[in-house]
Amino acid sequence: MTRTIVASATREIVIGFDQPFCVIGERINPTGRKKLAAEMIEGNFETVKKDALEQAACGATMLDVNAGVTSVNPNETEPGLLVQTLEIVQGLVDLPLSIDSSVSGAIEAALKVAKGRPLVNSVTGEEEKLEAILPLVKKYNVPVVAISNDETGISMDPDVRFAVAKKIVQRCADFGIPAHDVVVDPLVMPIGALGDAGRQVFALLRRLREELKVNTTCGLSNISFGLPHRHGINAGFIPMVIGAGMTSAIMNPVRPQEMEAVRAANVLAGTDKDCMTWIKTYKDFKPGEHAAPPPVAVVSPAAAEGGAAAGGRRRGGREARMARG
Amino acid sequence: MTRTIVASATREIVIGFDQPFCVIGERINPTGRKKLAAEMIEGNFETVKKDALEQAACGATMLDVNAGVTSVNPNETEPGLLVQTLEIVQGLVDLPLSIDSSVSGAIEAALKVAKGRPLVNSVTGEEEKLEAILPLVKKYNVPVVAISNDETGISMDPDVRFAVAKKIVQRCADFGIPAHDVVVDPLVMPIGALGDAGRQVFALLRRLREELKVNTTCGLSNISFGLPHRHGINAGFIPMVIGAGMTSAIMNPVRPQEMEAVRAANVLAGTDKDCMTWIKTYKDFKPGEHAAPPPVAVVSPAAAEGGAAAGGRRRGGREARMARG
Repeated sequence: MTRTIVASATREIVIGFDQPFCVIGERINPTGRKKLAAEMIEGNFETVKKDALEQAACGATMLDVNAGVTSVNPNETEPGLLVQTLEIVQGLVDLPLSIDSSVSGAIEAALKVAKGRPLVNSVTGEEEKLEAILPLVKKYNVPVVAISNDETGISMDPDVRFAVAKKIVQRCADFGIPAHDVVVDPLVMPIGALGDAGRQVFALLRRLREELKVNTTCGLSNISFGLPHRHGINAGFIPMVIGAGMTSAIMNPVRPQEMEAVRAANVLAGTDKDCMTWIKTYKDFKPGEHAAPPPVAVVSPAAAEGGAAAGGRRRGGREARMARG
Repeated sequence: MTRTIVASATREIVIGFDQPFCVIGERINPTGRKKLAAEMIEGNFETVKKDALEQAACGATMLDVNAGVTSVNPNETEPGLLVQTLEIVQGLVDLPLSIDSSVSGAIEAALKVAKGRPLVNSVTGEEEKLEAILPLVKKYNVPVVAISNDETGISMDPDVRFAVAKKIVQRCADFGIPAHDVVVDPLVMPIGALGDAGRQVFALLRRLREELKVNTTCGLSNISFGLPHRHGINAGFIPMVIGAGMTSAIMNPVRPQEMEAVRAANVLAGTDKDCMTWIKTYKDFKPGEHAAPPPVAVVSPAAAEGGAAAGGRRRGGREARMARG
């Protein structure tokens, strides 16, 4: 059974076929968020802190941390800023983190200070990337997201995407990185532009699970790009990818409709034991409630979900107290 | 490619792997609805009419019609009442109908007056049922729902349920009824009572599709029986069964959350061409809207979905006008 272990200083989470779906909170990312980028450049991390606490309170299993504020001189500025952001986040919540950068130096700098066992996001099938990232993944003994594109770009042929994923897994093996530490992103295309995007991903997920036996992830909301009422498409996509074998996604845990779809799919896939998380979350549910996100200042459902449901070790009440602050 | 054709007097619908999910509206059924049963016994069909129009307006592909008002003397009362109910419904909406009764005489009486090509709901693997129903199905050249239980009851072993389904399909063949006119119900158990219920059904659906090559259906809301916020579980279940190959379900089309899940899954499974139904339905969507059912007095989305999306022949504006009444 494939098990990818990620951990913060105090909490361990297993990503796996028999585990609740791993929700990797995507919010701490200045890409496309000009205001957040400006704040981070100024050394203002208030939005980062708010996003960390809110995502934890909404039930994220882990948090992605990206500090790509600029494309001008990222090699110089990003390592320091990523370290700073990561340290703030890991001081505030106890969820495992995903170190998200296209700058190898930033990933290495972050790996040096990260507590527990973070996920590296990401490597691709590009030779230069493989050579830069895989030695770090091996040296720090961490899992890595493998995106199935290479020098030729993103293939529209799912067989090519599978072949790229297979190549990365083999290259990882050459570096001594086991397949259970490679989390493949098969790449999700917008269904509005490519009508076959859903079926492609479902077929790829089955092959990745059955042939390569790897865990999988994706940038979930890509699927609904360009369509109206994107949350409805996302919420339908989640149970379908979980049914097809996907074990994690980089997504927005602050969206109640998407998180409800995750929790329902966990029940239906048999990974929410005795429906405990579902019953705890929705026992007093009133119709229409899921249209609004829960306030941050509540006892964190993340503590319950990450602990009881996600199969991680339950820790003390720090996070719940933090979430109230 | 398996194609089950159902039709009203004026509209033909195809149930199939490459078709939008077929939503069989479950509302016209006095089982567990004492008030409706009392009305129907008195010859008052106002609720039946309202349920027919409302389900059509909400996007049902076809309507189930059940007149089982009593278990005391159904053989005497049900044939006449089912005929009366069926005639009222087929005079009001142009959706194909499902004739739903446990009384063979009622099914035969309804088949005599039904226009188009109704679905017979249902036969089981019980010998007495097979002998009573299959000759009618053959004589009237209609498709039939095959429920995978027999004299021994409902097996908890999915292999046994598959074997029962296979036996019914074979018995149908003996009667000259082709497999594409058998719509198998693999039987959905409540996930709250049986944690494996989801995985069982997903595995069964794949086998029914790949090995028996039949269309499939289920009583959808069974899955959430006993759990809080059942609509959330139902809405997560729909994309998963569609992903696993289910092609229809007997369900409540008046529930916006469930219908949104159907429409999203159609987009993702590639059966909502160019996302036309999704875009038409949600282009002006405001968050929170799907918490309330649409009013009946609107131009019927059923006309659009049943026509353009469900692959059926689009007919004139009668239904839309009816839906306004």
